[in-house]
Amino acid sequence: MIHERKRRIEKIQRQLLALNMEACLISTSVNLLYTTGQVVSGYHFIPAEGASTLFIRRPEGFRLEDIPTFGIRKPEDMPGLLLDHGQHIPSRMLVEAGEMSHTDWLRLQACFASSELVDGTRALRYVRSVKTDYELDLLRASAAAHVRAYAKIPSVYRPGMTDIDFSIEIERLMRLEGNKGLFRTFGDMEAFMGSVLAGDNAAAPSPYDFALGGAGDPSNPIGANGTVLQKGHSVMVDMCGNFTGYLDDITRSFSLGKLSEKAYRAHQVAIEIEDAIQERMVAGAICEDMHQLALDIASKAGLSDCFMGSTQQARFVGHGVGLVINEPPVLALRAKDPLEAGMVLAVEPKFVIEGVGAVGLEDTYIVHDTYCEKISHLESGIIDLLA
Amino acid sequence: MIHERKRRIEKIQRQLLALNMEACLISTSVNLLYTTGQVVSGYHFIPAEGASTLFIRRPEGFRLEDIPTFGIRKPEDMPGLLLDHGQHIPSRMLVEAGEMSHTDWLRLQACFASSELVDGTRALRYVRSVKTDYELDLLRASAAAHVRAYAKIPSVYRPGMTDIDFSIEIERLMRLEGNKGLFRTFGDMEAFMGSVLAGDNAAAPSPYDFALGGAGDPSNPIGANGTVLQKGHSVMVDMCGNFTGYLDDITRSFSLGKLSEKAYRAHQVAIEIEDAIQERMVAGAICEDMHQLALDIASKAGLSDCFMGSTQQARFVGHGVGLVINEPPVLALRAKDPLEAGMVLAVEPKFVIEGVGAVGLEDTYIVHDTYCEKISHLESGIIDLLA
Repeated sequence: MIHERKRRIEKIQRQLLALNMEACLISTSVNLLYTTGQVVSGYHFIPAEGASTLFIRRPEGFRLEDIPTFGIRKPEDMPGLLLDHGQHIPSRMLVEAGEMSHTDWLRLQACFASSELVDGTRALRYVRSVKTDYELDLLRASAAAHVRAYAKIPSVYRPGMTDIDFSIEIERLMRLEGNKGLFRTFGDMEAFMGSVLAGDNAAAPSPYDFALGGAGDPSNPIGANGTVLQKGHSVMVDMCGNFTGYLDDITRSFSLGKLSEKAYRAHQVAIEIEDAIQERMVAGAICEDMHQLALDIASKAGLSDCFMGSTQQARFVGHGVGLVINEPPVLALRAKDPLEAGMVLAVEPKFVIEGVGAVGLEDTYIVHDTYCEKISHLESGIIDLLA
Repeated sequence: MIHERKRRIEKIQRQLLALNMEACLISTSVNLLYTTGQVVSGYHFIPAEGASTLFIRRPEGFRLEDIPTFGIRKPEDMPGLLLDHGQHIPSRMLVEAGEMSHTDWLRLQACFASSELVDGTRALRYVRSVKTDYELDLLRASAAAHVRAYAKIPSVYRPGMTDIDFSIEIERLMRLEGNKGLFRTFGDMEAFMGSVLAGDNAAAPSPYDFALGGAGDPSNPIGANGTVLQKGHSVMVDMCGNFTGYLDDITRSFSLGKLSEKAYRAHQVAIEIEDAIQERMVAGAICEDMHQLALDIASKAGLSDCFMGSTQQARFVGHGVGLVINEPPVLALRAKDPLEAGMVLAVEPKFVIEGVGAVGLEDTYIVHDTYCEKISHLESGIIDLLA
């Protein structure tokens, strides 16, 4: 981990120099995990050049062998410790203002009264979006375990189950295969492990910015809502794959017996969209172009009105994954950013068919210079649970 | 829900008047859930007097019959809509600055440039800490389901299990009993459903402010870490009870065969502490007094050094519960606030015994004017999984 930590900190330092920043102060769990290898409570001070310093509130006594670490009780302890140990107080410093609460920000600004604090949320998310080889291996391992769990899904189906019953058994399969359970998101989205959408519940709009909705429960309106699994309906399983701390994303569609002709056709169009995106998803490709490609194929098939939802339609067809489920980049309209080698994206073309439910799929891909590597190797077709 | 919604909004309005505020603008999922009955993405504008207004970004088309609701695309849409519909722009307004990101706060301040925005996080958490009768019934129902699931825990133990294996089967029991899975916290704490602590892993310090730690995993350092369940060790199960959207909290200790004399003695002291607190936990009691009482009993028993942890000790012995697992009030030193009827607290005296693991327990109580109502009715003793 020492070498990996060094690489990640150097990536942040290159970004700091590019932004003309003297330092950044990491404070969120995800970026402390990213820069230290473990979630801690505290702050990581990273100057644009030279060694970083770690300030730990908890666990008490936590130390890293390669990074000078000081125990603190409160953020106000930091400036003095920095000065005592040869660092200077930066005049411009990145902080995670897009994730830190306003009151925490005020407190930090008071601690570093002479520093201009600049929001680094986007810059740090961008740094994290291009993975190191070490991270790519963790994502490959997560996807491989995810695939093993998904392959067992048909074995836990029992007649008369509700979507929640089915979800519970799938959650257990995932956990037994090593899934850590925690479903980390950026922003206000909340979900428990993932979603199972049966029948027309797939059309229920959600407050969250996931690809599809589902009524869920008033206290967490997403996914399964107690719908009994019924003949002629589809069941879409979109459970996040947190097997290594890195989250891959896979969706597969199942059926109870035979679905409507339209549902199979839409599923084939989803496969076609994913294949078309996969072919183009190399370094240099522009995100919005791949979204437009998806819209064009859906439109040519006459399925625009049920692509990525029906009562409410998601405005993206793919998203970065990593320590959280929704990293940049996003394959969405007006996303002008080019892909870079080392980015990892989940591509998830989906349709909601009235009277049937959701169909389509999702796979996770690594972007390389001249090709795109699929890391979720699993049968793409709709699997009949009654077969 | 209409009557209940009205009651909750009136509680907030009384608080606004007491704080001399003209309005508050709710924006977090938890307080939108509290004031509407469902998680939505948007804002709830509540003036100190008169009708509130709901602004909904998603789900598209969401409406409530009793609250004027407007669809918006962005927060900038709000001021104009308020003025168009007979509201005025408040000169002083509470916002959730303790939970909202600094960048979101800046954007809101720009929308309401003439308003002084004041942090209402604490005030809203205080309002939520005193439950309505409707909420108390949901907490009683959650605890009852939680107890049913906990009673089945011994049935899923199998020799050779790790703490993670055991946790997976308990998670399934909880889910089958209706647990929604989601473990909502205030602040930076993250956990998947709860924690199972076996043997000396109970002593591992965590970055989170939970009562006990456990090494967990670097990406979520809390609870189970793969420890094989072994004879002579304890297993503490502290899974949160989100069965109704309201979270009760119960911990029970299990053993694999016989534990050390000291472990049983400490467990008895924990029961004694909980009983002593229960007797005093009525309206008007001061939080810190109950924490001091716990410290005194632990000290008298010669167990101060392992009370609420050993390598790192939690500085509280109880906490409010509700829509999140850590609501006010907290039974902690320097907590001068008096209890009020309708508050709901989890009391969790715990000890970490070297070579054995964690012992102790946790129950959830409703504070009344003259007594304290236990809502988690379950055997208190250590249950032998090998018996």
